[in-house]
Amino acid sequence: MITVTVDLKQRSYPIFIGSGLLNQPGLLDPYIEGRDVLVVTSESIAPLYLEPLQQMLGQSRHSVVVLPDGEHHKNLTTLNLIFDELVAQRFGRDCVLVALGGGVVGDMCGFAAASWQRGVDFIQVPTTLLAQVDSAVGGKTAVNHAGGKNLIGAFHQPLCVLADTDTLRTLPERELSAGLAEVVKYGLIKDAALFEWLESVAGKLINRDSPSLGHAIKRSCEIKAAVVAADEHERGQRTLLNMGHTFGHAIERCAGYGTVLHGEAVAAGSVMAATFSMRLGWISEADVERIKDLLVRLALPTQPPGMDAEEFYSAMSLDKKVAAGQIRLVLLRAIGDAELVTNYPGDQLLQLLREQLN
Amino acid sequence: MITVTVDLKQRSYPIFIGSGLLNQPGLLDPYIEGRDVLVVTSESIAPLYLEPLQQMLGQSRHSVVVLPDGEHHKNLTTLNLIFDELVAQRFGRDCVLVALGGGVVGDMCGFAAASWQRGVDFIQVPTTLLAQVDSAVGGKTAVNHAGGKNLIGAFHQPLCVLADTDTLRTLPERELSAGLAEVVKYGLIKDAALFEWLESVAGKLINRDSPSLGHAIKRSCEIKAAVVAADEHERGQRTLLNMGHTFGHAIERCAGYGTVLHGEAVAAGSVMAATFSMRLGWISEADVERIKDLLVRLALPTQPPGMDAEEFYSAMSLDKKVAAGQIRLVLLRAIGDAELVTNYPGDQLLQLLREQLN
Repeated sequence: MITVTVDLKQRSYPIFIGSGLLNQPGLLDPYIEGRDVLVVTSESIAPLYLEPLQQMLGQSRHSVVVLPDGEHHKNLTTLNLIFDELVAQRFGRDCVLVALGGGVVGDMCGFAAASWQRGVDFIQVPTTLLAQVDSAVGGKTAVNHAGGKNLIGAFHQPLCVLADTDTLRTLPERELSAGLAEVVKYGLIKDAALFEWLESVAGKLINRDSPSLGHAIKRSCEIKAAVVAADEHERGQRTLLNMGHTFGHAIERCAGYGTVLHGEAVAAGSVMAATFSMRLGWISEADVERIKDLLVRLALPTQPPGMDAEEFYSAMSLDKKVAAGQIRLVLLRAIGDAELVTNYPGDQLLQLLREQLN
Repeated sequence: MITVTVDLKQRSYPIFIGSGLLNQPGLLDPYIEGRDVLVVTSESIAPLYLEPLQQMLGQSRHSVVVLPDGEHHKNLTTLNLIFDELVAQRFGRDCVLVALGGGVVGDMCGFAAASWQRGVDFIQVPTTLLAQVDSAVGGKTAVNHAGGKNLIGAFHQPLCVLADTDTLRTLPERELSAGLAEVVKYGLIKDAALFEWLESVAGKLINRDSPSLGHAIKRSCEIKAAVVAADEHERGQRTLLNMGHTFGHAIERCAGYGTVLHGEAVAAGSVMAATFSMRLGWISEADVERIKDLLVRLALPTQPPGMDAEEFYSAMSLDKKVAAGQIRLVLLRAIGDAELVTNYPGDQLLQLLREQLN
């Protein structure tokens, strides 16, 4: 087991990464002993991992909420199912919520924990690669609004994150690739060596080579932990983690939530960001091709499905990264070096969209 | 104009108290200049004060959401009306929300601000006495769940609070009294001199004597500001502000939200807490009578409507003040001195309920 720490002073917490963690009794005891526990999971995950997790809870009084699967259920109505159970069980301010599942479960359970009685503790047990490398780490929680992704939420850090890499064995191929899109993103914005390593082991990763996946998760968590420790509330460098996401969120929205996986949208969005960076003379065409090649080898899309450019632009302008009416973009100075940009020529962005979206 | 400051280091903020503040141009400029503004108000308040507030907003781009009146609309569904407008206006992370109205508007607007894009700024412009002395100060925001009051919310401090005492002229009599119940509470828990002063000016307060109301608001805000500065997240002494509220919330719930005003429930709940304090030998019967007398003179109830004791006990046990299954009560050592209590005889509480609720 590897432990990566997110350093947030008195709110610091560990990310446990390794094989067989869900069968390691006692690991959660320091966080749950003597407390009421509500496990929040989803229909697809419950049959696979609920039982081992319940074993880990030991004698703690606990209850379970099983949410329907899918991004289109990530809204206030589904969130209320968690509150209903907390009310039914009469769980108080000292209870602990446990998110067992992918990004949707983690985001919703985290926001429920942030809001229940104005804030209770929670634990992340991510079971998808995307959640293990990204969404379960850093305290961003949210639900979607019909108008956009993650528009309603809170910053709320977990007590710990438990990433059992064995759960990746049951992950559908598309979801494995979707998680790798976020790993590529870390390489692109912060770590050229990680990007090069990904190029060298792309085949192994797709074939679920355990040591390779373990390293990818560890390195991703290290990068994210450092960024979050420096800028928890995204007032500065944390914005860089959104590379590919402003385009990606618009792809998800215009395609209809759930049609395209988040990681797939981030992959296509990263190529759009890289292409725009090239247009501004920041990176070379060869760099863009390298990025596309790696994504293709990871079974990820390199362009969005066909959609209307004006509608897409409108969706982008609702993204949270908008400041004072200007869409802020994270673009690439080089592979491994990203920058937040606001003062680009707006007509060039629209032109890019018109070309890329048809 | 008087200014009371809530001292929370870099998040400190002023409470402006005085006559004619809603007609004082420039007062809000430091908080809104160059930013998009969403005013959240209610059907009964908009015709009275929306126009002067809009004058104060000057050239700021702004929009308005008018919520239906009443505690029974304080839920996630109504909250979404605020998010709908934020989406429709495409307001970003740099926007400011303004709560113009009573406690329901302030609590909902504040929670919307806490959650929109994981947190944006907001301003409180309370127009009821209860909001001016209590709910608009201290950063507690929330909506109700069918299972209990304020169960879903956040701690989120405003940029400033603007309490124009002229708005109290249009306040219905019942709501004026309801606000005074919270002022009595401050006297009971922290300030015997305030309690005595209230006894000496009860008639003036009911007749809306402006200097007397101004002093009541100032002193209440001073006490609340000191408590919040010492314990923002209610881990210690802030709990004392809930004197009468654990009983009060159960009264509101069992009577049906909106039937009994919050302040009325707090008044009756305070008498229940005082009576229980007397049963434990903490205060005298004369003290309880003094409290009842003052409340009667302020046109407030001194006992709850008839309701079922077991149902009431069950409602109390869902209150946020419950820890480890034990209902925590704020009781009185003396008038002006309160204490949080968990180790009281549970059967005595049930006996009290059976006597008081019939």
